Amino acid sequence: MGSRRSTKETSEAASDPASSVSKEKKSMLVEGYPVEGLSIGGQETCVIFPSLKIAFDIGRCPQRAISQDFLFISHGHMDHIGGLPMYVATRGLYSMKPPTIFVPRSIKEHVEKLFEVHRAMDQSELKHNLIGLNVGEEFQLRNDLKVRAFKTYHVVPSQITYPIATPEIAFTGDTMSDFVIDPDNADVLKARILVMESTFVDNAMPVQHARDYGHTHLSEIASYGDRFQNKAIILIHFSARYYREEIEAAIAKLPPSFAGRVFALANGI
Amino acid sequence: MGSRRSTKETSEAASDPASSVSKEKKSMLVEGYPVEGLSIGGQETCVIFPSLKIAFDIGRCPQRAISQDFLFISHGHMDHIGGLPMYVATRGLYSMKPPTIFVPRSIKEHVEKLFEVHRAMDQSELKHNLIGLNVGEEFQLRNDLKVRAFKTYHVVPSQITYPIATPEIAFTGDTMSDFVIDPDNADVLKARILVMESTFVDNAMPVQHARDYGHTHLSEIASYGDRFQNKAIILIHFSARYYREEIEAAIAKLPPSFAGRVFALANGI
Repeated sequence: MGSRRSTKETSEAASDPASSVSKEKKSMLVEGYPVEGLSIGGQETCVIFPSLKIAFDIGRCPQRAISQDFLFISHGHMDHIGGLPMYVATRGLYSMKPPTIFVPRSIKEHVEKLFEVHRAMDQSELKHNLIGLNVGEEFQLRNDLKVRAFKTYHVVPSQITYPIATPEIAFTGDTMSDFVIDPDNADVLKARILVMESTFVDNAMPVQHARDYGHTHLSEIASYGDRFQNKAIILIHFSARYYREEIEAAIAKLPPSFAGRVFALANGI
Repeated sequence: MGSRRSTKETSEAASDPASSVSKEKKSMLVEGYPVEGLSIGGQETCVIFPSLKIAFDIGRCPQRAISQDFLFISHGHMDHIGGLPMYVATRGLYSMKPPTIFVPRSIKEHVEKLFEVHRAMDQSELKHNLIGLNVGEEFQLRNDLKVRAFKTYHVVPSQITYPIATPEIAFTGDTMSDFVIDPDNADVLKARILVMESTFVDNAMPVQHARDYGHTHLSEIASYGDRFQNKAIILIHFSARYYREEIEAAIAKLPPSFAGRVFALANGI
């Protein structure tokens, strides 16, 4: 993109393959936070809390992610990190301040190389602050915003991140349901909002299939029901095999303890 | 994306910020070829000829690019190459055959490193065939499809590529208008279809501004009018500063020699 400039932002590209719902409303309100983004297992995941200026994972870099100053990457799978260089480049193009990007410590060097390669080809600075966090490490983002990395259980190192001293938001990225019973993750189950994956929702794709690929099945979430003390649970990362109606039908069958506090980002807002 | 699978493709995401026109028709027909894609200077460029299964540049990897088997990258600026890893990963996710990707020889090693970094993070093979072409080099793609790399004039090494023995399609990527008067590029001006950039179109952004950033101004194209022997000229890469109506008004003022053979991909189809 180099030194070229563009002075007018285009309107939001509707990068949302899902449904009429997303056309009716631009975001959902969860515990006082507007939530936007899209998450389709294997394709792209990016969940945005615009009032906090943060995004979890960057997917293919949806237009709305670009205005978020802080980005948390859960792991290095393409559908979660693919849009990262574009995110940084586009912020540079619009002369926005360099973003602060958190990644699992285990992939920090890879991410640095990624930017080096693009710098060599793009001749732009791709300015950003990159911070690697190990599981358990914390970082004070602002006076009122702290992040901490938690362990999840996926096929690659993957982390939960949550901001703010009293856990406000926990985000799992891709993970098996085992993170729920990890005693070190007790705080995650107390976060006001838990954003967690639920890649599979029906019997055609059984629990073992989800586990084989390092993912969570909705029935596992249901079986752990009483452990979740979260005020709200936002389910993401549904497989592209499901139509929105199938996801909603599966969620409607959840036990009463979940009723009223489960939200589905299926497949985008 | 790793080993996860997804069996159902979602419908095309409308990754097109432009206008009602794109909603009325899915592609434009130029000299018998359907043409799709989108091109907004600095943001993303991807021009698709679906009947040939080829795409020029990959932009942010629009959904429609994924089904093209051959990809030609003009140069390494983010808005032209940013979606490359996602393109290869998504084809792998859907078990499509590895794509054949042509890049300027000068960036081939960078592109290889890009895939190495993503392989290390993604745990997938990211299978593809990568071919570097120097200016002047040719490659027989199929019996009826040959490509040749031409020199263009941008701030980084950049190439025109065109397929088929009798030049059918020439694609410039980003370039100053100087490529028009390069005697080695005579064939480009004879290609049946010329896809060329026209980043700026009005007096608010004068020719010198275009040249300073390695781009072409519409007035330069007009001044070279009689040199273009092409049956059709598809203009791309308009700056995001312009509304579609401004682009169309500028094109309407072109000399009669252009009338009827200029098409504008402004800003997407």
